[in-house]
Amino acid sequence: MIYKELLSEGDKIILVVVDGLGGLPVVGSFTELELANLPNLNSLCKRYPVGVIEPVGAGITPGSGPAHLALFGYDPLEYRIGRGILEALGLDMDIKEGDIAIRCNFATLKDGKIVDRRAGRIPTEENLRLVDMLKDINEVDGVEIVWKSGKEHRFVLVLRGEGLSDKIMETDPGKEGLEPHEPEPLEPSAEKTSRVLKKVVERAREILKGEERANFFLMRGYAKRPNIEPFSERWGLKPFGTASYPMYRGLAKLVGMYVPSDTPDFESELKAIEDNYEDFDFFYIHYKDADKAGEDGDWKKKVESLERFDSYIPRIMSLGGVVAITGDHNTPALLRSHSWHYVPLLITSLKAGVPTAWTFCEREAIRGSLGIRRSVELIPLLLAVSGRLKRFGA
Amino acid sequence: MIYKELLSEGDKIILVVVDGLGGLPVVGSFTELELANLPNLNSLCKRYPVGVIEPVGAGITPGSGPAHLALFGYDPLEYRIGRGILEALGLDMDIKEGDIAIRCNFATLKDGKIVDRRAGRIPTEENLRLVDMLKDINEVDGVEIVWKSGKEHRFVLVLRGEGLSDKIMETDPGKEGLEPHEPEPLEPSAEKTSRVLKKVVERAREILKGEERANFFLMRGYAKRPNIEPFSERWGLKPFGTASYPMYRGLAKLVGMYVPSDTPDFESELKAIEDNYEDFDFFYIHYKDADKAGEDGDWKKKVESLERFDSYIPRIMSLGGVVAITGDHNTPALLRSHSWHYVPLLITSLKAGVPTAWTFCEREAIRGSLGIRRSVELIPLLLAVSGRLKRFGA
Repeated sequence: MIYKELLSEGDKIILVVVDGLGGLPVVGSFTELELANLPNLNSLCKRYPVGVIEPVGAGITPGSGPAHLALFGYDPLEYRIGRGILEALGLDMDIKEGDIAIRCNFATLKDGKIVDRRAGRIPTEENLRLVDMLKDINEVDGVEIVWKSGKEHRFVLVLRGEGLSDKIMETDPGKEGLEPHEPEPLEPSAEKTSRVLKKVVERAREILKGEERANFFLMRGYAKRPNIEPFSERWGLKPFGTASYPMYRGLAKLVGMYVPSDTPDFESELKAIEDNYEDFDFFYIHYKDADKAGEDGDWKKKVESLERFDSYIPRIMSLGGVVAITGDHNTPALLRSHSWHYVPLLITSLKAGVPTAWTFCEREAIRGSLGIRRSVELIPLLLAVSGRLKRFGA
Repeated sequence: MIYKELLSEGDKIILVVVDGLGGLPVVGSFTELELANLPNLNSLCKRYPVGVIEPVGAGITPGSGPAHLALFGYDPLEYRIGRGILEALGLDMDIKEGDIAIRCNFATLKDGKIVDRRAGRIPTEENLRLVDMLKDINEVDGVEIVWKSGKEHRFVLVLRGEGLSDKIMETDPGKEGLEPHEPEPLEPSAEKTSRVLKKVVERAREILKGEERANFFLMRGYAKRPNIEPFSERWGLKPFGTASYPMYRGLAKLVGMYVPSDTPDFESELKAIEDNYEDFDFFYIHYKDADKAGEDGDWKKKVESLERFDSYIPRIMSLGGVVAITGDHNTPALLRSHSWHYVPLLITSLKAGVPTAWTFCEREAIRGSLGIRRSVELIPLLLAVSGRLKRFGA
């Protein structure tokens, strides 16, 4: 990668990720961004350049993991994060190289068949009680077993030891009325892991057998931690990341950002940046609400969430530095899901390009002077705008 | 390729290829598309997104073969179709794996030298009579020899057998006044093919020796059928293709589409799709006239052909499904040939993006919300729009 040869000192960079930012027509031909009243964003548009970025590739709708990796400057087709790792990071677990992280659900078993894959969505307190009991299983055949409660029926299991593999059959058959699968090895090198997991399942079954609802558990998304070059080495930046949802904190940690834990909302995320502004030179901050509303198919709620986000702009701008406002992907209320479309991008620096838009929306962003780029190109662009990339060649 | 992991079920897709669609200024700064009266296409533009696609790469003017391969989602720089194969497909010949197809011309030989490389462009009836005579040569050294007349002086020769190679010297020296080359092997593995072809040429010379003009023939464009993954496996679609010109039918067959044969014009192509709509989920349909007019440098005829195409839009739209309207390449009347320029694209689904254009033309398409893509990315994009791509990663 050429960038490493060119790295230099420069201004601070703030990457503001509005999860699920862009949309599709919901009223007439107007999108959520066009329907929202965004005085601050629209004012920035008149002064600074806009453009769009594509999360992964043509037609590819990304999950949060690949979408964020791309924003952080890692090609998501090259760096694949397994679901178990994402879940573990989301629970603030410390995952070491070689560990296997597994996404687990409590489930209800009757006559050997699964009657509820989520054990009636047991309350989180019950989950805590049960996982506490399961923690008795803390070692099998020399492999350390780590348990961590999530919300409701969800928890994460981590295996730590030598020669473990994630090539194991998922025990969750995906629907009710079926028997759970055995955690069979999918390749010879996974035999040890399979043997350990079978013993874990057997002992857990014994521990849970008296429970009415959560009398069993299912495993899927076995994953190893990917080998990722730290963000600081890759981009020459000292990075700080903040998010209210654990998964995004986990993604920031995965690339080696410093991530404070006590940030339950966007307000406190912003406060965390303000409090740590002197000590870092790259800041990632995550705004979740637009994505949630989009997933619900509720365009009015998405419009409101965008308007609420807009109200934070003056405070973000007062930090100083080069600010990029974009999304990890769009979540159009029309689709009720993430999407593959180009995501609007705004960079608050005259050095970034000429302003071309009157409002911050999909329709104008595609024609903006920042062009049409891949998300993975955003960090290099921000390095350039902040004066952090030297000339290439004489 | 990541797409294979993500394939899912979804809506039907119709790919409408207007051969030679876009153009360049011909009256003032207006192009053929801008001069044409296109009420239906312009109405679609106001409701649906537009963009552009690039057939192969910067400045590369494609032939019909690479241009279509790209539209079908095969990188034309990776999959090369030899000229002999294209000619054979253009004559509705069935080409099997391992076959060698050769583009041939009748020629006039005098005192061992070529005096006319096209044998005075003999009428097609004479070609038919001569090829009928040559069909006596139907087997040499266990290799099957297949002959098929084209128009005027052109015909195709196909060798079918074990261990054949296309690494053979062309016998056509490229200009008059020279002796024809021998079909020498260009590498050791081509020795068998060379021996067979020398015998074919010798016997043909004997058969043709009494002819006044077509007393010999020349060979070039030796080609094997490329090894192409079937469209159905690659994209998870059951494909139907229809075109009135044999070469386009051949290209559709080459990627494994089901192609009906009795479609002499666009009207009957459309009818074929209507009659088979239930049984397939991808439809390719080819409109030839715009390209022909462009090649003739006749912008008025091109305008008329585009207007005629426009009149079919309601019937195409009534099929249902996601419709993409684009070209394999542009054929600007100004250039009297194919060109390298971005080709306008329209996708008739609100899920594809926000509408940005008032009319369907080069000027507005480049700024559209579908962006600027490579033709090879079109199928993945259509898969996404039709709901056929699952989310990538968690």
